[in-house]
Amino acid sequence: MAVGWFYLSFYSLWFLGLMCIILTIYWVQLWHGGFAWDGTLLMFNYHPVFMVVGSVVLYTSLLYRLPQSWVGPKLPWKIGHAMLHLLAFILTVLGLVAVFQLHRRSRITNLYSLHSWLGIVTVFLFACQWFLGFVVFLLPWMSVWLRSLLKPIHVFFGVVILSLSIASVISGINEKLFFSLNNATQPYSNLPSEAIFANSLGMLVVVFGLLVLYILLVSSWKRPEPGILTEGQPLLRDGE
Amino acid sequence: MAVGWFYLSFYSLWFLGLMCIILTIYWVQLWHGGFAWDGTLLMFNYHPVFMVVGSVVLYTSLLYRLPQSWVGPKLPWKIGHAMLHLLAFILTVLGLVAVFQLHRRSRITNLYSLHSWLGIVTVFLFACQWFLGFVVFLLPWMSVWLRSLLKPIHVFFGVVILSLSIASVISGINEKLFFSLNNATQPYSNLPSEAIFANSLGMLVVVFGLLVLYILLVSSWKRPEPGILTEGQPLLRDGE
Repeated sequence: MAVGWFYLSFYSLWFLGLMCIILTIYWVQLWHGGFAWDGTLLMFNYHPVFMVVGSVVLYTSLLYRLPQSWVGPKLPWKIGHAMLHLLAFILTVLGLVAVFQLHRRSRITNLYSLHSWLGIVTVFLFACQWFLGFVVFLLPWMSVWLRSLLKPIHVFFGVVILSLSIASVISGINEKLFFSLNNATQPYSNLPSEAIFANSLGMLVVVFGLLVLYILLVSSWKRPEPGILTEGQPLLRDGE
Repeated sequence: MAVGWFYLSFYSLWFLGLMCIILTIYWVQLWHGGFAWDGTLLMFNYHPVFMVVGSVVLYTSLLYRLPQSWVGPKLPWKIGHAMLHLLAFILTVLGLVAVFQLHRRSRITNLYSLHSWLGIVTVFLFACQWFLGFVVFLLPWMSVWLRSLLKPIHVFFGVVILSLSIASVISGINEKLFFSLNNATQPYSNLPSEAIFANSLGMLVVVFGLLVLYILLVSSWKRPEPGILTEGQPLLRDGE
């Protein structure tokens, strides 16, 4: 498939991701009073922002889909991939801290809703994925055999974790709106402006996820395996 | 990959699917009074059951992964695929009717939550997918060119619709539990038995979805394209 179409999809993805982040910040800034690292509801506001930035947008850097990463030494790209995901993971953990701190201060039970169960399982898988990926693919003494054994599992769980993150974000926005739009004058069911805004944000996160799935599935955009001449290479050749 | 492993995954999927259905029925039967087609909350109880049966389990019949479908005439398998999805779609629509009837009778606004926005978009995509699939792949006068153009799109949206269905189910269970476990003695945050049961059901639906993703991604379990000898065929040959 043409190089132009790849870059259009790739930059659309980053544009969509940026929009998701901006709209999440705008949502909590405009309707929930902004941010403060103080254990109150203002601290909770970091939760949706860090989760969207960390576990969805930064998580989906798709570095290896860039044809530039297919030539020359692989190590710098591997380090970039690991560093971006480490940053995404740190932000995700900060997102967890934001909600746990609010719960601690307000004596709210941790991890009772399905949203939180799904979310915490996703973060746990993310931690395992990063740690195993670091040990197996970055530490120099690992065997090629072990790397090629883990690679399809690493790729599979890469998609799994993103899917679970997006399902967590959707259930999280839904849950938050039922919490915050629960007064008689402005119930969620009247679709006040916040409801329309945050529902649209949720749908945008879904569109982002579907675009990721599309980019991942186009076989000619995949990094060709070393030594294998496949249909996967026209993109690189077109681009040269 | 070995035939035995394929059948183990395939039957595990059906077992998991069956468990999801049984646990959904058990949930609404035990904690929400069972079923009645009368516009009350008992009618609403059909909603989660029909959605899990129709848009998740029956939807994921994966007929074309069965090696038996790769040999002999394709038409009976295409008709089977279309019929199973038509049945899944009808159940999904009945699931919608169940909730719209409750809303009409109880004067509750339709389609305000993010769960409902995502759900209705999913059902709309399902309708388009079935209709286009029927017209292009089953009506005899469609050109081979058009069929091969639509096929990757049909496969892509097949996965998309299942992913959106599962995200809808997760946000739906979460929403339902916030509605029903909202009294002071048994709040959701105390994790009463219903909360643990329905959260676990949600996690089981997620595991079902991940197993589908796994089965779909194993390249040697894909139906080989006619005339193309690929790695995709050992399964059939092993099984003969």
